[in-house]
Amino acid sequence: MSGRVKGFRFAGVHGGVKAADRLDLGLIFADEPAVASGVFTMNRVRAAPVTISERRLKSGLCQAVLVNSGNANACTGKQGQQAAVSLTRVLARALRVPSSLVVPASTGVIGVQLPSENIEAAIPELVEDLSEAGASRFARSILTTDRGPKVAQAELKVGRTTCRLLGIAKGAGMIHPNMATTLAFVTTDAPIAPATLSKLLRQATELSFNRATVDGDTSTNDSIYALASGAASNRAIEEKSAAGRRFVGALTEVLESLAKKIVADGEGAEHLVRIVVSGARTDADAVQIARTIAGSQLVKTALYGCDPNWGRIVAAAGRSGARFNPDHVSVLIGQVSIFEQGTPVMTPKIEAKAAAAMKRKEYEISVTVGSGRGLGHYWTCDLGHEYVRINADYRT
Amino acid sequence: MSGRVKGFRFAGVHGGVKAADRLDLGLIFADEPAVASGVFTMNRVRAAPVTISERRLKSGLCQAVLVNSGNANACTGKQGQQAAVSLTRVLARALRVPSSLVVPASTGVIGVQLPSENIEAAIPELVEDLSEAGASRFARSILTTDRGPKVAQAELKVGRTTCRLLGIAKGAGMIHPNMATTLAFVTTDAPIAPATLSKLLRQATELSFNRATVDGDTSTNDSIYALASGAASNRAIEEKSAAGRRFVGALTEVLESLAKKIVADGEGAEHLVRIVVSGARTDADAVQIARTIAGSQLVKTALYGCDPNWGRIVAAAGRSGARFNPDHVSVLIGQVSIFEQGTPVMTPKIEAKAAAAMKRKEYEISVTVGSGRGLGHYWTCDLGHEYVRINADYRT
Repeated sequence: MSGRVKGFRFAGVHGGVKAADRLDLGLIFADEPAVASGVFTMNRVRAAPVTISERRLKSGLCQAVLVNSGNANACTGKQGQQAAVSLTRVLARALRVPSSLVVPASTGVIGVQLPSENIEAAIPELVEDLSEAGASRFARSILTTDRGPKVAQAELKVGRTTCRLLGIAKGAGMIHPNMATTLAFVTTDAPIAPATLSKLLRQATELSFNRATVDGDTSTNDSIYALASGAASNRAIEEKSAAGRRFVGALTEVLESLAKKIVADGEGAEHLVRIVVSGARTDADAVQIARTIAGSQLVKTALYGCDPNWGRIVAAAGRSGARFNPDHVSVLIGQVSIFEQGTPVMTPKIEAKAAAAMKRKEYEISVTVGSGRGLGHYWTCDLGHEYVRINADYRT
Repeated sequence: MSGRVKGFRFAGVHGGVKAADRLDLGLIFADEPAVASGVFTMNRVRAAPVTISERRLKSGLCQAVLVNSGNANACTGKQGQQAAVSLTRVLARALRVPSSLVVPASTGVIGVQLPSENIEAAIPELVEDLSEAGASRFARSILTTDRGPKVAQAELKVGRTTCRLLGIAKGAGMIHPNMATTLAFVTTDAPIAPATLSKLLRQATELSFNRATVDGDTSTNDSIYALASGAASNRAIEEKSAAGRRFVGALTEVLESLAKKIVADGEGAEHLVRIVVSGARTDADAVQIARTIAGSQLVKTALYGCDPNWGRIVAAAGRSGARFNPDHVSVLIGQVSIFEQGTPVMTPKIEAKAAAAMKRKEYEISVTVGSGRGLGHYWTCDLGHEYVRINADYRT
């Protein structure tokens, strides 16, 4: 696919937030006001751009998203709020759109005021840089300690028209001393009403970003923005229709792909692991068990050591709060069964096979906790020396 | 103090669970049936000795506690249950007491059957070893990967009599591949009724062991046993009396001292840190905020790096679920203020002072979140390379 979406242009330039000539200022611009929705961090401590974006997106419309990396504009008080509002005004004038249709997003160091003058001075160049083919520059402009840009695409049919979704994200956990934030932006040319987009975005987020953990720490800036130009077709997508189901499927696919890229890029992570829980009483129970296993420090260090440590997996399940009978628990690593109906079945040969399966870059751990219908999963990564090195040895 | 408590004798021998001649079998014996109570793991996956002890302690009486280290007798099915019950029967015969007054406790590897024959063969020697001065041998016999024995004592006045409490614990988190368990045993010669002891033990546990974290993982074997011989005095301690308040104070002191020793002995830990939260709406909110900060991987790696990273502390508070105004948050490391009323006050000089305070073996981080009366604390330790080495590089 092309990295283009009808009705949108993208830009990425150096705006003087980071040092040297690194890209640190990005822009998504819709030719016409786009239908828009956002999902924002549940953290009580929220960055200025989060509160402004949430307020402005209540209209259900948005025409421009201004993103900077290198500075989170979090814990910056009134000055931080004013800086963000003022920059969206300057951009709105340059783009000749109402400032209420411009939203800001920031990622980077917490507690340092935005270098507003540098950013303001770069806005003409940013607008100049806009192009339909600019998504890859935008994707690079929003990165902080990521190992590389994170882009995912999908297509779906609405009637006879092919609609496209393009997702772009950054993040590797709440990373690096004083660095924070996961940001994700999805643009689509699909036609959809604001209320429907908002509902389907929440559903898709629940099944993707809310099923992924690097370190259990929720940032002050986490945000997902979805913008729909409707440029592909005139027939609006209804929630309860075949097109609606295909749309939420494609959106989930794009967001899950981005979430997986973020977990795989977790600080120092060497393995991307999907914890799948089945047989729980309810889906919520299954997700709760998967989340507890995925977040356990002891499980994550065992993943790092390629140690098929069923004891830690079963003990984490046991403290999840979900009800199940320990005698009905079984655990598989990849295809290798290591624990069956509450009892370890480990032999040296089985252990070697399980350890070999854990050497892979991406694999699955399946935990069955009974015969219920509840099913859920969670993405996680290993916790190793590189995580400690990044987060402790490097000073702010 | 002497390590003796009127009415109790202690023993510790090699029982053939661990290799070589290491102590691995311990016994606490009360001359007469003691008033007894227990607090057990909330983990749904529970070791055999936990379920047996909980059932037998319902009578409110106990005369002997048989402890082995080196094997947790967890995830061992019916065979594990039978082994534990059978060993308490053998011990009961040797001690000439009803087996309903004997409770088992185990700590060590999960998922391996107890070497019952070895233990049974060592029981005569164990009984022989009992002495009023045997507490230090008992304290050593229950250790697994601990750096050393953990003992705490306290005294209180009941009327004109001085009563004594002796606490003995083991644990360093849910540690080492397939190792688990915190165990704590408190003996006292204070006179107290079963219902009162049970209530006060729960209160004291809530303020001590339930305010400590190494890695957030709850073991399958965690147990606290309290035994009161009443040998010091005839006047029973009432819950709502001056003596009752002194008793719960002394019990909390003993348990908190043990809990601190366990956190300080957390895998590879170099710092013991008390997170104190004040100004919350309720005590429960304050504890919730302190627990979230204490459990944050990013905070714990910052503690390891001696990095006064207020951003991670504030962000962890923000995701705790407790309600507070971020603009009213202040943070002190030791006596050094680094964040005031929602804004960082970091200068190079302040940062150097804060980093110096974090080099200490034990210190406090104070977080104020408003002007409410809610107050709470949590003990934690740093997360460094040694934790990863112990939990990942060493294989099962």
